[in-house]
Order: sequence, then structure tokens, then C-alpha cells
Amino acid sequence: MTESRPPVAAVILAAGKGTRMKSDRHKVLHEVAGRPMLLHLLDALGPLAPQRSVVVVGSGRAQVEAAVAPLGIDVATQEPQLGTAHAVLQAESALAGFSGDVLILYGDVPLVRSETMQAMLDRLHAPDAPAAVVLGFRPADTLAYGRVIADADGHIARMVEHKDATEEERACDLCNSGLMAVRAVDLWPLLARVGNANAAGEYYLPDIVMLALADGRAAAVIEAEPWEVAGINSRAELAEVEGAWQARRRLKAMAEGATLRDPATVWFAWDTAIGRDVTIGQNVVFGPGVTIADGAVIHPFCHIEGANVGRADIGPYARLRPGTEIADEARVGNFVETKKARLGRGAKANHLTYLGDAEVGAGSNIGAGTITCNYDGFFKYRTVIGEGAFIGSNSALVAPVRVGAGAIVGAGSVITRDVPADALALARGRQEEIPGRAASFRERQSARKKAGS
Amino acid sequence: MTESRPPVAAVILAAGKGTRMKSDRHKVLHEVAGRPMLLHLLDALGPLAPQRSVVVVGSGRAQVEAAVAPLGIDVATQEPQLGTAHAVLQAESALAGFSGDVLILYGDVPLVRSETMQAMLDRLHAPDAPAAVVLGFRPADTLAYGRVIADADGHIARMVEHKDATEEERACDLCNSGLMAVRAVDLWPLLARVGNANAAGEYYLPDIVMLALADGRAAAVIEAEPWEVAGINSRAELAEVEGAWQARRRLKAMAEGATLRDPATVWFAWDTAIGRDVTIGQNVVFGPGVTIADGAVIHPFCHIEGANVGRADIGPYARLRPGTEIADEARVGNFVETKKARLGRGAKANHLTYLGDAEVGAGSNIGAGTITCNYDGFFKYRTVIGEGAFIGSNSALVAPVRVGAGAIVGAGSVITRDVPADALALARGRQEEIPGRAASFRERQSARKKAGS
Amino acid sequence: MTESRPPVAAVILAAGKGTRMKSDRHKVLHEVAGRPMLLHLLDALGPLAPQRSVVVVGSGRAQVEAAVAPLGIDVATQEPQLGTAHAVLQAESALAGFSGDVLILYGDVPLVRSETMQAMLDRLHAPDAPAAVVLGFRPADTLAYGRVIADADGHIARMVEHKDATEEERACDLCNSGLMAVRAVDLWPLLARVGNANAAGEYYLPDIVMLALADGRAAAVIEAEPWEVAGINSRAELAEVEGAWQARRRLKAMAEGATLRDPATVWFAWDTAIGRDVTIGQNVVFGPGVTIADGAVIHPFCHIEGANVGRADIGPYARLRPGTEIADEARVGNFVETKKARLGRGAKANHLTYLGDAEVGAGSNIGAGTITCNYDGFFKYRTVIGEGAFIGSNSALVAPVRVGAGAIVGAGSVITRDVPADALALARGRQEEIPGRAASFRERQSARKKAGS
Repeated sequence: MTESRPPVAAVILAAGKGTRMKSDRHKVLHEVAGRPMLLHLLDALGPLAPQRSVVVVGSGRAQVEAAVAPLGIDVATQEPQLGTAHAVLQAESALAGFSGDVLILYGDVPLVRSETMQAMLDRLHAPDAPAAVVLGFRPADTLAYGRVIADADGHIARMVEHKDATEEERACDLCNSGLMAVRAVDLWPLLARVGNANAAGEYYLPDIVMLALADGRAAAVIEAEPWEVAGINSRAELAEVEGAWQARRRLKAMAEGATLRDPATVWFAWDTAIGRDVTIGQNVVFGPGVTIADGAVIHPFCHIEGANVGRADIGPYARLRPGTEIADEARVGNFVETKKARLGRGAKANHLTYLGDAEVGAGSNIGAGTITCNYDGFFKYRTVIGEGAFIGSNSALVAPVRVGAGAIVGAGSVITRDVPADALALARGRQEEIPGRAASFRERQSARKKAGS
Repeated sequence: MTESRPPVAAVILAAGKGTRMKSDRHKVLHEVAGRPMLLHLLDALGPLAPQRSVVVVGSGRAQVEAAVAPLGIDVATQEPQLGTAHAVLQAESALAGFSGDVLILYGDVPLVRSETMQAMLDRLHAPDAPAAVVLGFRPADTLAYGRVIADADGHIARMVEHKDATEEERACDLCNSGLMAVRAVDLWPLLARVGNANAAGEYYLPDIVMLALADGRAAAVIEAEPWEVAGINSRAELAEVEGAWQARRRLKAMAEGATLRDPATVWFAWDTAIGRDVTIGQNVVFGPGVTIADGAVIHPFCHIEGANVGRADIGPYARLRPGTEIADEARVGNFVETKKARLGRGAKANHLTYLGDAEVGAGSNIGAGTITCNYDGFFKYRTVIGEGAFIGSNSALVAPVRVGAGAIVGAGSVITRDVPADALALARGRQEEIPGRAASFRERQSARKKAGS
Repeated sequence: MTESRPPVAAVILAAGKGTRMKSDRHKVLHEVAGRPMLLHLLDALGPLAPQRSVVVVGSGRAQVEAAVAPLGIDVATQEPQLGTAHAVLQAESALAGFSGDVLILYGDVPLVRSETMQAMLDRLHAPDAPAAVVLGFRPADTLAYGRVIADADGHIARMVEHKDATEEERACDLCNSGLMAVRAVDLWPLLARVGNANAAGEYYLPDIVMLALADGRAAAVIEAEPWEVAGINSRAELAEVEGAWQARRRLKAMAEGATLRDPATVWFAWDTAIGRDVTIGQNVVFGPGVTIADGAVIHPFCHIEGANVGRADIGPYARLRPGTEIADEARVGNFVETKKARLGRGAKANHLTYLGDAEVGAGSNIGAGTITCNYDGFFKYRTVIGEGAFIGSNSALVAPVRVGAGAIVGAGSVITRDVPADALALARGRQEEIPGRAASFRERQSARKKAGS
């Protein structure tokens, strides 16, 4: 699709102050579906294999750089901030020598799909070879958006700000998202010609469309779904975009064959992978890095992150933390936490248990209240439990420690030494009773209580 | 109501492939409110005391049979699937000799009320004696539903598929749900006359209405609420029907005097029974088999199934499993699980506890972290705690075991033998201290950590 | 604002039977946002510094008195209940000698804002000096509300009941909320003139407006937001008002710089205080008395009440109960409950722990499954843990007990005596193994199981 095409570069504008977020974190690093919104955009760019990407920031450069440097993305600074055209110009030196197509995106408009970006480039290379392709959308409420006046084929007649629009122009519901595709060879000269003779004294990006049209060039608009171009300027808008993302993700999960008992109470992360005939109860939160196999059942109130779950039975109230591997037919029950823990086929940890840095063999049963003591304040140690072992309830396994296959640990034991296979291990106090002592205690305390009141 | 009436039979069509469900489970066995949708329909049929019921399936016969066989319901197979009229015909031999009224229902339209079914039969026996009674509905959006063209008294002039409808007919918003009531004596002859001269080559059930009208017989339509006749063809539609069911159930609970802090976050099962002046916090999931007495308080994040709860205080984060009985004034607190457990009046289990196969006497106090060790890998055993006993925190009660009335178990004990009434039982290690050892350990580990880094 | 103004009194009508609530609790004592609705109203009155307030009740006087007596509010009884004008008259003797402005409010209309009440009084003292100020509103659906026919400046021409309204009057969407401001000097004489010559034989409060107009006096209407004057007559309406309150509170939290991952699943109490750059996961319930500092992270499924939380990391599944103080950089993890507990800076209690009546020094680490045994059935005792201590997993700390700074408690210990600083304390059984015993046990039980089946 891109073989015969020029290379692609992306300029991502992220210089807005984000004042309404009231945050020390840069706006474009706030998360949607467990991933900074800027990275959603970079993910969507991925299939287009951009040759270069530049993020243009105002303040908070260090934060953004820390996030994108590992990806080999450039960061440019716009200071002072003199408008969107001026912002794009700040990427010019980072793109020196680049002569392909430039996509202009916004760090706070994170949900644009790859397909839409590709369609913008496709349109740029259509036979009529427009100088610029604008991404438009038709919102339910056109509010104060700028309008794109175009014919039925998407040839733009003019772009008009809402406040400058005539009654007739306002009746047009095709709005400007701000996203654009322009050849580098056109972009920089056009930007250089943009003026700031307006009330705000700013250099506006849409002006390049008007300049191109004035040159007798064509300009085109294509349309996105409104949710794709929703921008985020406040925490409320962040929540709305998150909600829109989740709503689509839930429909996808159901279309692919998962039952969501109440879809509005299942929250996916950007990379959650859910199989077929999976059942997900009410109130399940998926963090990043989760794969759920066909036929698994996730009961209500689970919190699952960084876990690979087979055709197993999880929850309610199970918390699977990163490094969890649950094999088929295994079971993790209520008030159970796992971390860097692997449960073999048919293994069970049904109640009130913490399995950290642990391996549980196939078919083993971990009693209620079992704790792997994996940390000594300095280091973490592993607990290894063999196949078919039985850990009695309320036991503490002090790692590093191994319980052999088929071994039994008696309830309430504190296991500090390895247990051989097939052995019974006990490590608990001996029971003694003091007859009548409870009665005398009760009398004494009752008297004290009465005296104290 | 049915004394002077002919007997009733039901034909439940369930032969659709359910492809969009993407499931190994037969579509009509997917659950709404914790009960397979087919059983909702059979529940609603109950008050009509049908003499016979036949479910017509395509594939997945074994699954459906397993579900309905215990109820004495017949299953017939439609193979190949040549349309709804053809499907009903597959029930003819199962209904051989039956000469009463036949209700034609759909396994994936599970929420039709008894009252509505009864109204269909009532209409069938109205003085004008229609040959067929069609159940219509007026949806918010008529989409591509077939229309029922009828006069104000419900006399049908014609039935018309959406695609064949004129502009005027489409303006009519009375749609055909597909459900029908027909006398057996009319049904089989009419079905035999239905042809398949249509684009799909299928035998359509609504054609019997047109045939009856052509014979000069009357046919009538009565109206259902749209939610009653909502059909389920995908997991998304399953979720919508579940949502509609829950919304109505929540209103009913509130109308009957329960406070739901946030109704949208309380999920009832088909048979949940809730008293008056019950308070239910946010995020409470009821599974089947629950009764909650007047005045009980259910705090947020509870999961309750198979439990009989008195005027007690439950949660937050309490999980009551089947076989739980909670008496008045008892209290089950956070991160507590009960299973086949009975708590007497005023008994308390407030924190981090597992009570399985247990009996807790009135007024007893179960300390935080108490575990009943009820399972040895092979059998389950009972724990019996007398009235007014006090189980110290973090104790393990290794069943079978009895703690007598008024007895005290010291914190951290592992109780393996019965404790007499009024005795104090201790079963734990003796404390010893090694002065300075923590400091030296810290030094050593700090050094190792430094060396390792 | 009120310096040059007459004093204010409030008459709060609460004599409705509340039959639809189906509750033993007086309707105005049902809670919104964790606070009885009557107290919301009294809170809103606070800034107006009313000289006197009178609640007029029908039945349930004792309950209402118990709630408001501590606040120095009078209660009057209306018996029998002969209409709203008659109800206000019951407050006359409690207001004997009062000659300022009277606000007439409704106990089941709890969300009216201070600003709105103040605006009513301001309007009462506008130059045209109306005899009465009516609080109107424009609902989305005018239903059967009484209409206020007024000019653009809010001068009332007439008040008309819905059932008596002409078509033209019904087209007016300005409705009467029932709330009113009237000078005491006008109120009592006007009320005395109200008659009951109507179908219900009741004395209606709005009649005083018609009487004033007939006297040639002016009467004025000002407008409230519809949500402010929503009334509560059923549990469903209670839930709706709660929902409206929560929706506004969530927007406020977000506007002030908190991220709510899914705003619809965060429930605030009336007095919750949330800082800037706080992140709140899905499904968090705040009870009364909570303060969350800037930068704190609250993970999903938390239940927090009576807690003061610093820039700390809480949850998921953490339950903080009253008397909890969490310092900066501390961490409370999953299935952890705190009550009257203070965690110092950087202290950690990550898993399956109960900390009651406890103090945890800065930097201490509380192992998984730790329980403070704070209750002996009669009294509560304190646990004090010094700075930098390490409590091994599955330990029980039997209060009263002190663990010194830098001390280590070995996993699975039951600590009943104070532990000196820097000491290692162990209190657990010794481990022994019986080789092959697990294997023989397995054989025996398998045989029994086979025999039993």
C-alpha cells in the first residue's frame, strides 16, 4: 500500500498548556485505557511506518521526552506559543531533508485510527493531488468548531472559523478537526506565508488551506467518526474519551464471543486480549498485559494486570498482578493475590492467600489463608510447590523454600525448611487447654468493664 | 381462569444457529439474571400449567435436552432448517393427540410475561374467535420488523414484511414479535398449506395468518411491551436484555422499600428476595438463591449467593456462598467468605475470615484472620463453635472440631482437638527474642544488596 | 451581605407521610451522599445564619427531634395534616416574636443551594418589595406541576394548579417548587386568610400569593435549577437525587484536578475533600470524613471512611475505616483493613492485613496476613510498631503490645510480649517432617473415598 508512496513523517502538536487539567503531569501523558494518550497516537501511527516523528511541546519537555525517547521520537519546543501554524514550524529543523508526506496530529486527540491516517494520505495522492487534506467530522453538536465548506466530493471551497461564519456556513455540520496531511514540499513554504493579523495575533494552521486555494491548488477533506477526533482539555473530557474507548472495546469483546454480564462495569486496557466463550462478571478491571484464554470465567470484582490466564476460574475478588500465569482448570478464588506466580493445571488457591514469587505445581491445593513470605525487607525469594501438594490452611511458607510433590503441610504451619516429596510437615504449637479459664477471664473483664463505665 | 378453557401446549422455537453468539453453548442456554434464558420462558409458562411443551432445536440438542429433561419438556429437532413454519411443524408429532391451544414462543425471546401469554390465550377465546392471535409491539425504532396492519380493535387486515411494505404500511409502528397463539386444530392444517415461494425458499410462520384471513377467518393482534419481546442474537443483545431485566428489578426492589444507593450497581438474580427497609450499597452482586430479611444492611462490594440473611449487617467485601445462614443482629465483615455456614444471632466475623462447613453459636466472636480448615484434599469436615465463644485472631480451626460454648481460643492458635466449654485453648509457639539480631541482619543484607548492585 | 438585613428564620415542612418510601425511618432522615436529607438542607441554611429554624413534622417526631435537637432546631407537629398552609402555621408559635424574613423549605427537597436561598431573600428586599418570593423552575417535563404565570422580570400575575390551568397556561414551563420567602409580618396574616374550599379540603400555601396579589401587593418568582428542587417521595426518587448529587460532585472533583477513571463509579460523601492530581480508580466509595491529599493514588475497589490520606498509594480493595491516618509515601494494599490506625511516612501494609488501634512507624513493613489482635471481647488495646520495623507475614500481634524500632518479627509469630528495638522475635512452632506420611494419608483417604462412593 505504501510501496510506491513517499515516506511519512508525523508532527504531533502538544504545546498547549493544559491548564484545565490542573496537573503536574503533561496533558498528553495522562492515560486512556492504561496508556498515555500520546502513545495511543504513536501506536496508531505504527502501521504507517513513519520515517520520522516529532512531538512539539511547550512546557514539560522533559516529561514528554522521557516518554518518547525510548521510541526514537524527536521532541521540539515551541516557545513562545504563537499558534498552531507556528507550532508546526518548530518541527521544521527536526524534519530537515525530509521530502515525503507530513501528517499533522494532536497529542490530545489520541484516538485517531491508523485507517483514518492512511485514508488522509491516500487522499493526498488521489489524481487531483490536493495541496492539503483536512480531516473533518460531523459532530452531534457543532458548537463553536470551525467549518469546512466543501462539495460532495470533498473539494474544499473554504475553511471558516465559527465566529466568522455566516448563518449559511454555520448550517454546514462538517467541522475541522485540525488534523491535516500535507507534502513537506508544500508545507514549509505555506507555513512561512501564514500571517498573524487576527484578534489573537496567532498563526493559524488552517490558513495554509486558504493560501493553497488562493494559489489555485486543490484542497480536500475526508471525514472521521466524531469519537476519533475528540480532544482532551480537562479531566472530564479525559473521562469522556476513556468512556468512548471502553464502550467500543466492550462491543468488540462481545462481538468476538465474550459474555460481559454488565458491559459498563468491565474496563479493558489498551492491550487486553480476551478469548471466545469467556465470561466476565460485573466489575472487572483489566490493567495492561493481560491475555485471557477461551472459556475462562472471570467472576465479579477482579483486578487483573500482567497476567496470562488459561481456561481457568478466577475470582470473585481475585487480584492477579504482573508475572501471573494461570494454567487451564486452575482456580484462583476470593481475596487471593498473585504476583510473579505460576499456577499449574488444576491448581487451586481458593481463599485469602498471597502467592508472590511462587510456583504451584499442577493439581496442588493451597489452603485458605496461605501466605508465601517472599520478602525479607531486602530481597525477594521464591517458593516452589510440587505437583499434587496440599498446603494446609493458614500456613506461612518462608521463602526460599520448596515443598515437594505430593507433600502435605499441616494447617497453621510456618515452613522454613524444604519439605520432601510425599512427606507431612508440621510446624506449629501444641494445643493445651486450661479448663474454666475462659469463664474466669469473662468474669474479671465484665467486672472491669462495669467498673470502668 | 383456565377451568373452562382447553389445555395449553407450548412450542418453543430454538433452532437458530446463534452464529453471532460465537459460543459453544446453545444460545438459549446463555443466562439472563443467573438463569438460562430458556428457563425464564418456562418459568413464565408455569402459571399457565401447559399440558405439554416442546423445544424445537437445530444443533446442540444434547445441551438443551440436558437442561429441560428434568422438567419433563420434550425436544424436537428441525433439520434442515427451512423456516419458522417448518420449525413449528417439527413439534407436531410430539403434540400428537393434543387438541387445545398452542402458544408459539421463541427460546431467544425470554422475557415474555405470564400475563402476556395469558392475554394471548384470552384473546384467542374472545367472542370473535380468531384463528390466530399475534403478539405485536410498538418499538421506539421500527427498524426492519414485519408490520401488523390492524384496526383499533386489533383485527388484523394483513401482515407484511418490512421489505414488501408500502410507505404507508411502514408508517404503522405495530410490529410482529413472531409469538402467536393458535388452536391445535387450526395450526397443523394451516402450517401444511404454507409454501416457500419466496426469495429465501423458507416456510414462514406469519403466512398462516394470511391463509386464515384468506379463508375468511379472523386474526387478532394484542400488544406487548417492547422489552418483553426483545430477542437475543448476540452477546451485546444478551447484555441489553440483562440490563432491561435488571432495571425493572431494581425499580421493583425500591418500590417495595429497599434503598439502593446506586441502583445501576446492584445486580439481582432471577429469584432474589429482598425485604423492606433493606439498604444495599454500591456494587452488590446477588447470585441465585438469596433471601434478605427486612432491615438488613448490605454494604458495598458484596457477592451473595445461596444465602439466607436475617436483619444482619453484611460487608463490605463479604462473600456469602451457598448454604449460608445469617441470623438477626449478626455481622459479616470485610474479606470474609462463608460457605455452608450458619451464624447465630449476634455472632460476628468481621475480618479476613473463611467459615466453611461451620456453625457459629449466637453471640460468638470470630477474630480477624480465622480460618476453618474444612478440607483435607478428600473430604470436608465441620467446625462447630458454641454460643458466646471467642476465637482469637489468626486462628486455624482444623475440622472436624468443636469449640465449646463460652470457650476462648488464644490468638494464633491451631486448634486440632475439641475445646471444652468455658476453657481457654492455646496452640501456638512460645515467644523468644534475640537481642540485636534484627540490627545485624539488616547490616548483612544491606551489604549484600550493595554488593549485588 | 446580611448586615443591613432583617434576621432570617426557616420553616421546613416535613409532615408528609412518606408512604411510598415504605420505611420505618422518617423520610427526611433517609440519606443522600451519606447524610440525612434534612441535614443537607440545614447545611445549606448555615451561611444564612438563621436566627431560628423549625421543622414541622407529622408522624415520626421523635426520630426527627433526635436528629436535629443537637443543632438547636425546633420541631413542631402538624396533626391532623390539612395542607401546606396549615403546616406552616404550626410553626407560628415557635416563631413567636420573630419579625424578620421567613424561608419556607421542604425536608424532602434537600439540594437547594445557599445561593438560591440567598437570592430569594435578596429578591424579597428588591425595590419593588414583593410580599412573597416564589422559587420557580423549568423542568424538562412540566408534568402536573403548578405553573407560575409571570412577566419577564419575574412579577407574578398568577399561580395556577396544573389541573386548573388553561391550555395557554400549561404551555408556560415555569413551575412552582413550593419554596417561598415571605416577611413574618406578612406571612401569618396571609396564612390566616387561606381557605380550604377545594376538592381536597386542604389549605394550600400558594394561595397566599394570590391573596397578596388581590391586595395589590407584588409577588415575584426567581428560578432555580431543576435539580435543586427535585423532591423525594420514593426510594427511586431518592436514588435519582443521589445520582444528580454525585454527578455534580464528580464534575467538581475533575474540574479541581482529580482523575476519575470512570466517574460514574466513584461515590463521594457530602464532605469528601479531594486534592489535586489525585487519581481515583473504578469503584471507589467514600464515606463521611475523608480527606485525600494532592497526588494520592486510590486504586479500584476501595472503601474509605473517616480517613486522612496523604500522598499515598491505596488499594485496590483497601478498606480504611474511621480514625485512619496515612502519611505520605505510605502504601495500603489489597484486602487490608485499617481502623484507628496511623501509618507513618513510607510505611507499607500491602496484603491481607488488619490494623486496628495501631500505630505503624515510618518505613515499617507489615507482612502479608498480619493481624493486630486488638479486642479481647471486652476491651480494645493498642499495638505500637516502631520506625523501620519488619513484621513477618502471617503474624499476630496480641495487643497491648509494642514492637520496637528496627525490630523484626519472624513470619508466622504470635507476639504477646513487647519486642525490644532491633531484636528479632520468633513465636512459632518448630518444623518437623514425617517422611512418606502424606503418601500414606493419600492412599488411606482415596480408599475411603472410593468405598464411600
